Amino acid sequence: MNIFIAGIDGYLGWTLAQYLTIKGYRVTGADALLRREWVEEVDGQSALPIASIQERLSAFQAAYGRQIEFYEGNLLEYDFIQDCLRQAQPDVIIHLGEMPSAPYSMIDQAHAFFTQQNNVLGNLNLLWAMKETCPDAHLVKLGTMGEYGTPDLDIPEGFFEVEYRGRTDRLPFPRQAGSFYHWSKVHDSNNTMYACKIWGLRSTDIMQGVVFGTRFPGMCDRPEMRTRLDYDQCFGTVINRFCCQAVIGHPLTVYGEGLQRRGFIPLQDAMQCLTLASENPPEAGEYRVFNQFENTYSIVELARLVQSAAKTLGLDVSIQHIENPRNEVPRHHYQPERQKLVELGYQPTHDIIGEIRAMLEDLLPHRDHILHKTDTLVPDIHWDGTRKRAQVFETVASASVSD
Amino acid sequence: MNIFIAGIDGYLGWTLAQYLTIKGYRVTGADALLRREWVEEVDGQSALPIASIQERLSAFQAAYGRQIEFYEGNLLEYDFIQDCLRQAQPDVIIHLGEMPSAPYSMIDQAHAFFTQQNNVLGNLNLLWAMKETCPDAHLVKLGTMGEYGTPDLDIPEGFFEVEYRGRTDRLPFPRQAGSFYHWSKVHDSNNTMYACKIWGLRSTDIMQGVVFGTRFPGMCDRPEMRTRLDYDQCFGTVINRFCCQAVIGHPLTVYGEGLQRRGFIPLQDAMQCLTLASENPPEAGEYRVFNQFENTYSIVELARLVQSAAKTLGLDVSIQHIENPRNEVPRHHYQPERQKLVELGYQPTHDIIGEIRAMLEDLLPHRDHILHKTDTLVPDIHWDGTRKRAQVFETVASASVSD
Repeated sequence: MNIFIAGIDGYLGWTLAQYLTIKGYRVTGADALLRREWVEEVDGQSALPIASIQERLSAFQAAYGRQIEFYEGNLLEYDFIQDCLRQAQPDVIIHLGEMPSAPYSMIDQAHAFFTQQNNVLGNLNLLWAMKETCPDAHLVKLGTMGEYGTPDLDIPEGFFEVEYRGRTDRLPFPRQAGSFYHWSKVHDSNNTMYACKIWGLRSTDIMQGVVFGTRFPGMCDRPEMRTRLDYDQCFGTVINRFCCQAVIGHPLTVYGEGLQRRGFIPLQDAMQCLTLASENPPEAGEYRVFNQFENTYSIVELARLVQSAAKTLGLDVSIQHIENPRNEVPRHHYQPERQKLVELGYQPTHDIIGEIRAMLEDLLPHRDHILHKTDTLVPDIHWDGTRKRAQVFETVASASVSD
Repeated sequence: MNIFIAGIDGYLGWTLAQYLTIKGYRVTGADALLRREWVEEVDGQSALPIASIQERLSAFQAAYGRQIEFYEGNLLEYDFIQDCLRQAQPDVIIHLGEMPSAPYSMIDQAHAFFTQQNNVLGNLNLLWAMKETCPDAHLVKLGTMGEYGTPDLDIPEGFFEVEYRGRTDRLPFPRQAGSFYHWSKVHDSNNTMYACKIWGLRSTDIMQGVVFGTRFPGMCDRPEMRTRLDYDQCFGTVINRFCCQAVIGHPLTVYGEGLQRRGFIPLQDAMQCLTLASENPPEAGEYRVFNQFENTYSIVELARLVQSAAKTLGLDVSIQHIENPRNEVPRHHYQPERQKLVELGYQPTHDIIGEIRAMLEDLLPHRDHILHKTDTLVPDIHWDGTRKRAQVFETVASASVSD
């Protein structure tokens, strides 16, 4: 099976390239290397120092004796993506090549504009290029659980049977995203659903929970194989950020009460799921949606889990409740379905404490490196378009937590 | 009331500028004059010869003694739209400034890309510029009934109460648009709904039916006051196209069986409704959706109505069923709600035959002009990305129609 990864230099992309190659698949990929620029722009850095893409590719070949074909370029360039697909002749296209940060998209007009331009038009180009060059390929597209928002209903996998005024139909489940970034993913989902309908393309649209972790079992330990791990306010997702905070003794910063509940998935489970989706393509013309997460947690639960895991490593961390810079509902129903991947064989890791501890162990040797950049551990990007450091509401010392 | 019209040089824009001025409102507007270029690009022309924007504005001032402030520029230029709003200080912004053609968006990758870039990013810029310069203004944004597609349910006005697995919530009604153009309007609607939610903007999102007609009662008869009327496969909407066909003795080209049913609205009713929406703003933070159409008709019904109206003017036209170049469901349920505008005072014209006859009378003096450009009366843009003249299935002579 030939697999093409758009966004192969990213957090998921570089990990997945290794995971799939170890599984025996031929992997090629493209990247514009923009993630590195965005993180630098917001004064962030990878907590685990990472190698250049050239160093990564060379080390990969040295370790596995297999070459990853790499194309540097941008999905907004239609000729580029057409050339990539003509060269790669993929059976599966895994599209991870988007700007993935909600706060980054909310900084100002320019960043909202950039986000929707980059994501929506890049994905649209990819759909056209598939239609023109490889209409039988299977597009595994990365969406996000954040597309659904927090409706006061259970969340099905993309579609639901609905009765209205005595009639019934199967309809797309309404999306209520929570940032211009999340809306860009909704727009992508809609365009992709439509391309499948009119052109007979096949796609699995992955509504993925928030990913955390540094590795999968059996991942090569060479520094060039490390994937990035961001902890700034834009690109650092919550568990990753908490772990970096724990390692340097910074309070774990919970936005508001922390009762917002979301789906989360360890990096190794994300690899497992993306592989399962790739290995089990839908029919031509079928657009299917998988909700991809291991479990749901509230943010304050996660802070306590990180606190506990840190304690077993002798790290004493407190939890800090700070002003929520986002616009999100503080308390809400949250019951998303997650059945389709299980039916394909997904076996959830079910050991979040173990995962977090493994992350902390990977991060501890880089404590000094992380300490070099700590300015954006407390957010200042507000959803109302202003920039001001979020206020601290309350700090709960670790001693008061029973674990 | 200060009203700012984005897209003031278009079919609706130029008509609305006159209509609102006659009502006594101060109107300013902007346009990039792209519609003139797009129509030329697809080898079309306005059936009614139209004046340049400068001639229009001068004639307007001569006729009414009032100036329309006009800014030439593009919504994709954020500085431009900010400057416009700072100058205009609008109470109401009526956003008609988008690329409005489904077939144009389906020509190829470049046209799909252009359509979503132009519409989605232009609207996004407008939202940011409102937030920055006039957050209390009311955005009346032109969407389309085509955003809903043809679900097997009744279509409410934007939102519906839905029960699912024992819980209920009020959710956005799922959209299932039928072209990359229509999806661009859905993306706009989503971004606009979100801007209202997080920034407290107020917006009326108009899901408008297909507009037809050449004038409103009392419209000045000077040639510079005429609005454009397109009849090519891209920018000519169905009743307008049928009327132009009738005037030159071309068969009325019905796509497929013609049992597709859509909402339609006379130009004068569209003016009435857009004015009612403008005069009755929602609360700050409110995003409301109006379905704006006079009635629903199937395409073949409309062909028969145009045929009948033409007959009263001595025009003998046949109806031709041709291959449908679009991807749409041939027979379907269609029961959209239209209540909110009626509650605000909308009085439907209810005389479609009269409207069509008035159009035919306006068009007849321009028969030779229309005959100059007839190449795109039969479509060749197919939804599968190919270009080939649609095949003729069947021609029904006018004699066989009982009316």
